[in-house]
Amino acid sequence: MVPKISPMERIYLNMVLLSFRRREDMKRVLVLGGDGYLGWPTALHFRKNGWKVALVDNLIKRHWENEIGVSPLLPLRSLQQRVEIENRSNSDSANQIKLYIGDISKNYRFLISVLEEFRPDTIVHYAEQPSAPYSMVDHLRAVDTQVNNITGTLNLMFALRKVVPNAHVLKLGTMGEYGTPNIAIEEGWIEIEHKGRKERALFPKKPGSFYHLSKVHDSHNLEFGCRIWGLRVTDLNQGVVYGIKTQESNPMDESRTSFHYDAIFGTVLNRFVTQAIAGIPLTVYGKGEQTRGYLNIVDTLNCVFLAAENPASEGEFRVFNQFTETFTVNVLAQKVARIGNILGLETQIREIENPRIEMEAHFYEPTHSNLLELGLSPTFLSDDILKEMFELVQLNSERIDKGNLLPTIKWKNS
Amino acid sequence: MVPKISPMERIYLNMVLLSFRRREDMKRVLVLGGDGYLGWPTALHFRKNGWKVALVDNLIKRHWENEIGVSPLLPLRSLQQRVEIENRSNSDSANQIKLYIGDISKNYRFLISVLEEFRPDTIVHYAEQPSAPYSMVDHLRAVDTQVNNITGTLNLMFALRKVVPNAHVLKLGTMGEYGTPNIAIEEGWIEIEHKGRKERALFPKKPGSFYHLSKVHDSHNLEFGCRIWGLRVTDLNQGVVYGIKTQESNPMDESRTSFHYDAIFGTVLNRFVTQAIAGIPLTVYGKGEQTRGYLNIVDTLNCVFLAAENPASEGEFRVFNQFTETFTVNVLAQKVARIGNILGLETQIREIENPRIEMEAHFYEPTHSNLLELGLSPTFLSDDILKEMFELVQLNSERIDKGNLLPTIKWKNS
Repeated sequence: MVPKISPMERIYLNMVLLSFRRREDMKRVLVLGGDGYLGWPTALHFRKNGWKVALVDNLIKRHWENEIGVSPLLPLRSLQQRVEIENRSNSDSANQIKLYIGDISKNYRFLISVLEEFRPDTIVHYAEQPSAPYSMVDHLRAVDTQVNNITGTLNLMFALRKVVPNAHVLKLGTMGEYGTPNIAIEEGWIEIEHKGRKERALFPKKPGSFYHLSKVHDSHNLEFGCRIWGLRVTDLNQGVVYGIKTQESNPMDESRTSFHYDAIFGTVLNRFVTQAIAGIPLTVYGKGEQTRGYLNIVDTLNCVFLAAENPASEGEFRVFNQFTETFTVNVLAQKVARIGNILGLETQIREIENPRIEMEAHFYEPTHSNLLELGLSPTFLSDDILKEMFELVQLNSERIDKGNLLPTIKWKNS
Repeated sequence: MVPKISPMERIYLNMVLLSFRRREDMKRVLVLGGDGYLGWPTALHFRKNGWKVALVDNLIKRHWENEIGVSPLLPLRSLQQRVEIENRSNSDSANQIKLYIGDISKNYRFLISVLEEFRPDTIVHYAEQPSAPYSMVDHLRAVDTQVNNITGTLNLMFALRKVVPNAHVLKLGTMGEYGTPNIAIEEGWIEIEHKGRKERALFPKKPGSFYHLSKVHDSHNLEFGCRIWGLRVTDLNQGVVYGIKTQESNPMDESRTSFHYDAIFGTVLNRFVTQAIAGIPLTVYGKGEQTRGYLNIVDTLNCVFLAAENPASEGEFRVFNQFTETFTVNVLAQKVARIGNILGLETQIREIENPRIEMEAHFYEPTHSNLLELGLSPTFLSDDILKEMFELVQLNSERIDKGNLLPTIKWKNS
């Protein structure tokens, strides 16, 4: 017998039940590499959108930055402080960000214990050495990059198979895995017709650094994990990201993310804007006809969130080419120079010897329809966006270290 | 003024000069993994053919064998003793085999010092964890296999670039890197026609274990090294090797090589012959229609030697598919059973649950013309060869450990 309850009691009970359900039904995302340029705003974006969030980081990138003597344009507090400040400012006390400090590559038991405690539905895996030039510094950095990235991903595969085999992994790859082939680049897989027969195969890779190679190795390992264990993986082959500001991460307050402008950890557009503000020429490597895919950091978050809300199936190794538009380096430099000149900065462009070994003029036609089909509405690079970037860098121009803007790592010499 | 010399003096001087030239002109091969099934006979084969030979090994495979409790059918002396016995039995005191004990994966300085001292023209790189089942034992073995194999090869790339950039690397890969695609398998590279354009790309890989994946990663790293540094590499994607005896390595004396028949380190034909001798059924995994490329160990040596005598060009990443014929596992089992029955062993064949995850019936058409074009004259699997294998295993049948013949490592459980 259900006891008789009054209408008022019913309303109250429903409220309690709904509130309880909301907690229990909240989806859980674990962000590996939560201290990074993308990791931190990704975490804030998921929380804002009703997900329960936990972060993992070993803070090693801060150490690498110290070693080579670079730092983000705006100072960052410790990750522990950032999480604390964020949790304090959040009125919803039941949805606090969890933080785990540890190394997923060197400490498998740590990773297991995090998964056992947090039991994520989705894992966003950014926890890798993210720089091509860093991987080309010398023998040690090349080996460390590959061992760190490959081992972290292998550990993740084994750990989630053991603890949360049904969880969906969003793995950050790079468009640089493909290189610049003379055929259209498909999204991860290609139907090959050869001598009258057909095969659906992984799209052939021709990466341009030991870093890019590490991502190729990860992709092969993950595809195998899907094939034999039924893992669910989305490999996000991302283009070059730019931008500082997202809906939840504001460079003007403590929610800011790291902004690198140096030649090792800074991406090209961020570096160009900084060079313009610093009053030194934008350095184009070689002929500048290298074409790449680009996206605003806002769209990185949109893409990752869309992929998380629409997970890969059991056993599926799904690949998204994650960018919104393509430019040559020259076009990008011209866009930045134009804004610089509008703002009275007399921005110059200078071709310098290419430190990398890559084709400087080539065919480039990468497909990128999967994320659009999931509903991505891209934020294209506009004058307004560029002006906003200029403004933010201008405000912090006294912190620019001009000595870190020119490439010092040469592919031939590594 | 040249002093006047008598005809007798001239003959003597010529002899001295020729002898001196022979030493100086001798080509030098460094065999990495010189204690192994292929490394040891490869070393003897090169020396017999007039090359100066040095071996490197860290002896770790003997440790792995101890850990899982298997051993070769015939006992092997220490590598130090084997080299000493070999050098003593060699009348040519000027052509002694050099031995370096050390780890190319963990000790980069060791590798540098070996290259500086020996200055090889050719490096045969076998120094990797060689077993698919071993890599699937558990998390630790999977990670160790990939880190060991990838790091060793990366170290080699950096070391030779620094010390002997012109040396030719013969790297042992495996046909298992390709998997079993529905199209003909080309030798490493494929011309892809896609949407009206063409590209010469690395043949797409779909490997079947963490071991096979490690070889795929090596191939990508090496191709990059050729592309950016001009390294010379021949990737030998080898089929399944069988046999005990080569021209220079005799199982009946101290020149013998290791012969593994167990389910971890033994290749399938060696295992079948051992099962027949042990009077237990030949264990076919699953349906037995898996087709693979096979070659006699004699042809491994022939292939490697031909490739060494005809090196890759500067910057060339050359791939050879190294096998001489293809069989299904069923055909192989039937061949062995037939000989077993001729010899009165009443050999049975038994299908057991497949411990691996692989297609059990599939299209298979791998190209293998490069080595034939260099002049390889194959040794096909004949009744005589099988009978000789039976005879050698029979002579040592009391040493067979029947407990190690059945697969214990399951791909689903790793």
